[in-house]
Amino acid sequence: MMTNNTPLYVGIDGGGSKCSAILFNAKGAVLSQGIAGSANAARDFSNTLVSIVESVRLALINAGLGSDSMAGLQVGAGLAGACVPSVNSQLKSWKHPFASFSATSDLMTACYGAHGGNEGALLIVGTGSSAARMQNNKLTQFGGHGFVLGDKGSGAWFGRAAVASTLEALDGLIPLSDLHDMVLNKLGLNSSAALVQTMINASPSQFATLAPDIIELALLHDLSALNLVKEGAAYLDKLCLRTLHGTSLSMVLMGGLAPSIEHWFSPELRQRIVKAQAGPEWGAMRLLQTPELMAC
Amino acid sequence: MMTNNTPLYVGIDGGGSKCSAILFNAKGAVLSQGIAGSANAARDFSNTLVSIVESVRLALINAGLGSDSMAGLQVGAGLAGACVPSVNSQLKSWKHPFASFSATSDLMTACYGAHGGNEGALLIVGTGSSAARMQNNKLTQFGGHGFVLGDKGSGAWFGRAAVASTLEALDGLIPLSDLHDMVLNKLGLNSSAALVQTMINASPSQFATLAPDIIELALLHDLSALNLVKEGAAYLDKLCLRTLHGTSLSMVLMGGLAPSIEHWFSPELRQRIVKAQAGPEWGAMRLLQTPELMAC
Repeated sequence: MMTNNTPLYVGIDGGGSKCSAILFNAKGAVLSQGIAGSANAARDFSNTLVSIVESVRLALINAGLGSDSMAGLQVGAGLAGACVPSVNSQLKSWKHPFASFSATSDLMTACYGAHGGNEGALLIVGTGSSAARMQNNKLTQFGGHGFVLGDKGSGAWFGRAAVASTLEALDGLIPLSDLHDMVLNKLGLNSSAALVQTMINASPSQFATLAPDIIELALLHDLSALNLVKEGAAYLDKLCLRTLHGTSLSMVLMGGLAPSIEHWFSPELRQRIVKAQAGPEWGAMRLLQTPELMAC
Repeated sequence: MMTNNTPLYVGIDGGGSKCSAILFNAKGAVLSQGIAGSANAARDFSNTLVSIVESVRLALINAGLGSDSMAGLQVGAGLAGACVPSVNSQLKSWKHPFASFSATSDLMTACYGAHGGNEGALLIVGTGSSAARMQNNKLTQFGGHGFVLGDKGSGAWFGRAAVASTLEALDGLIPLSDLHDMVLNKLGLNSSAALVQTMINASPSQFATLAPDIIELALLHDLSALNLVKEGAAYLDKLCLRTLHGTSLSMVLMGGLAPSIEHWFSPELRQRIVKAQAGPEWGAMRLLQTPELMAC
């Protein structure tokens, strides 16, 4: 067990599905991790604060430390929604239980971590999609905009497009293909009416569960799946090249769909892609040392 | 003022924006009309019942009759959502204040009315889009499926696609065009963040307010608008030809966007288009005489 006077740091990565806290010592070595529930600050602010404290508490336990150590921690967080102006001011006035707390967007900490604290670019493609580049100490975001208006090429976008395509096939407007059979089988449904009733209020995550199978069918040359994957990948390719435009930055791909969608990217983009050096928790911890970057 | 023993009929057309009741005499002549609030039975059931009674009450007043005449009325209604199974059984068990009440989908009454009680096909393209044909005493629907999963070529679809295109232009992924200027000017906004914040929770009707300007810009050859209108119209054209396929039926176009979108339809479709003979209220009233059709 460590003594209370050891300076300790915490880096937090918070999003819609979970909140991860990693405890670092003064030299930046990982001591432990704690994982708690969702932490999308724009969607559910009070729950985000609960998840942050809970993830830190679990990390302390996993390091053999008690909750009394919390008051000595320097905490940096990257949170989905943290840079929405109204959310950001609430975060700044939070009476947190730590020695210090600062937060920025999860895109910032992910990009900073991915390039080991250096300049670079990032594409996140999971349930949603967005890109960013960190250059001259400034983060610039491209794409995103959410399920209703953007996030093209994301898991949610693929899933919804496949459901819409299935409805068109059931209407007799396009030929039925393996893609449509997959959608109906996976959801255990056999009619338009049932498909609409089941999916009309589905969350982005629910739509995104269809995405891996869509990409697999594209690799098996199902024409409907192939058209969707080509359209989504073409958008993401354009988004990445726009993000890299006029720079010599490298790009890191993150998110659940990244490994499978990379196959469809242009050679021009693929030669700029590198592996991540560290995770978003490391990025959040490291940003504590450059507080001018810990902003929105 | 008429006596209570005159047999009177009411035809109702209920949708998301309003509920219209038309009072007919035994010979089918229009006596009066009453208009009340929204009557989407699937979205807001209890309010639908309120709107139905209110529209009938207003029609009675406009004919110089009192509410005591209500108990003698034979009422037929076409309502959005009336054929959703759970909604339909609720409508059947409604303790209504009329002599009789029966309801079917608004698509059925509109199609039946449009062709004067004969077989025919219908495209409705306003805030949403859907098509149907009435043949061999059976209504078959094509398309529709709502804002999230379908309704392609509708006002809401055009509006959302224009907002998404504007965000892509502001991201530098496609050239800025008059379409994007129109979207920003009409909404009084000047940034991606403001556009997302304003429109991310917008209703289908709010998106649809952009549609007339989009079609106008397409006629002025704005490339972004033209691409959207061609895509939406191509879908609707295919939907209509699918609806007519294997029949010699005529098609009636209804809804706010119908007059302007017809310009983009194929010659093959346009030669099948005819003018409506009567409105959906007439269709609902007339269906009372063929109760086997007043079903879902």
